[in-house]
Amino acid sequence: MVHSTTAGHGHSPDQGDVKKLWEMMKGVQVAMMTTLDDNGRLNSRPMATLSHAGFEDGTLWFFTRAHSEKVSEIDRHWRVNLAYSNPEKQDYVSVSGIAEVVRDRDKIRFLWRDIMTTWFPQGPDDPEIALLKVSVDQAEYWDSPSSTMVYAYGY
Amino acid sequence: MVHSTTAGHGHSPDQGDVKKLWEMMKGVQVAMMTTLDDNGRLNSRPMATLSHAGFEDGTLWFFTRAHSEKVSEIDRHWRVNLAYSNPEKQDYVSVSGIAEVVRDRDKIRFLWRDIMTTWFPQGPDDPEIALLKVSVDQAEYWDSPSSTMVYAYGY
Ligand SMILES: Cc1cc2nc3c(=O)[nH]c(=O)nc-3n(C[C@H](O)[C@H](O)[C@H](O)COP(=O)(O)O)c2cc1C
Repeated sequence: MVHSTTAGHGHSPDQGDVKKLWEMMKGVQVAMMTTLDDNGRLNSRPMATLSHAGFEDGTLWFFTRAHSEKVSEIDRHWRVNLAYSNPEKQDYVSVSGIAEVVRDRDKIRFLWRDIMTTWFPQGPDDPEIALLKVSVDQAEYWDSPSSTMVYAYGY
Repeated sequence: MVHSTTAGHGHSPDQGDVKKLWEMMKGVQVAMMTTLDDNGRLNSRPMATLSHAGFEDGTLWFFTRAHSEKVSEIDRHWRVNLAYSNPEKQDYVSVSGIAEVVRDRDKIRFLWRDIMTTWFPQGPDDPEIALLKVSVDQAEYWDSPSSTMVYAYGY
């Protein structure tokens, strides 16, 4: 179901919107992931989307350190926002979803790419590596300065 | 006071960091503003920073509609995140702060610029126009893919 909103904001999503959404996300690739901390503060940090993992089932994947601020924030409040923005192209995407830490070593090895050594120099067998799986429950995009948002995804 | 974190992440802020932070924010200009809704969901949307308002006192200004989803979300949970990102330059900034709706007509007229007619076609006297004032309480930036964050601001 599409999250209802005031009239005039966007329209019901269709397959073309979801395709467009995923193209925009892949183009930006690095999202700012916002989490809620114990003090009610909202914190964000850049996170590289594993675009080779696809978006078929509305799921996004990221690598993370198992012991990190974001993981403890997610342990307490599992809802996150992913903001993909490229001001030069005027592409803006907001994704709201539920994050979960996944420690499955096979999945980690399967999704591993060598470029990740920038953040995880010890490679995929580092016990500190985990995955963050984000199940998207709502997404919108804007693709020009004057655009009202488009609902591209919603349950 | 700088929010403390695990060793190795960033350093104490100095004037140069704050200057760099503001340069990066001005360069990106359009932030993704994340708010918390009633369902615990985190929503974000692009918002144009009023860079002519400066950043002297750790305050950021935006125009908004007085009746909008973001304003009702801020009414209930006033902490927001502003994510400034430019993937092409590898510039990423996270700003955490407290947002407040300001309806002062003089301030609105003072900060008005004609480019805002994109979102507010009726101009500065539209009774639906308000300002969002964000008092920054913490900010970090990253300026290369491998950079650990820099604490540029913190109380
Ligand atoms: C590039 C860009 C800049 C925008 N800047 C603003 C802005 O400064 N103020 C604003 O209220 N909306 C701005 N918008 C529209 C918002 O992103 C959003 O659609 C609108 O404020 C309604 O949001 P809400 O329903 O979550 O309150 C901008 C949109 C784009 C694409």
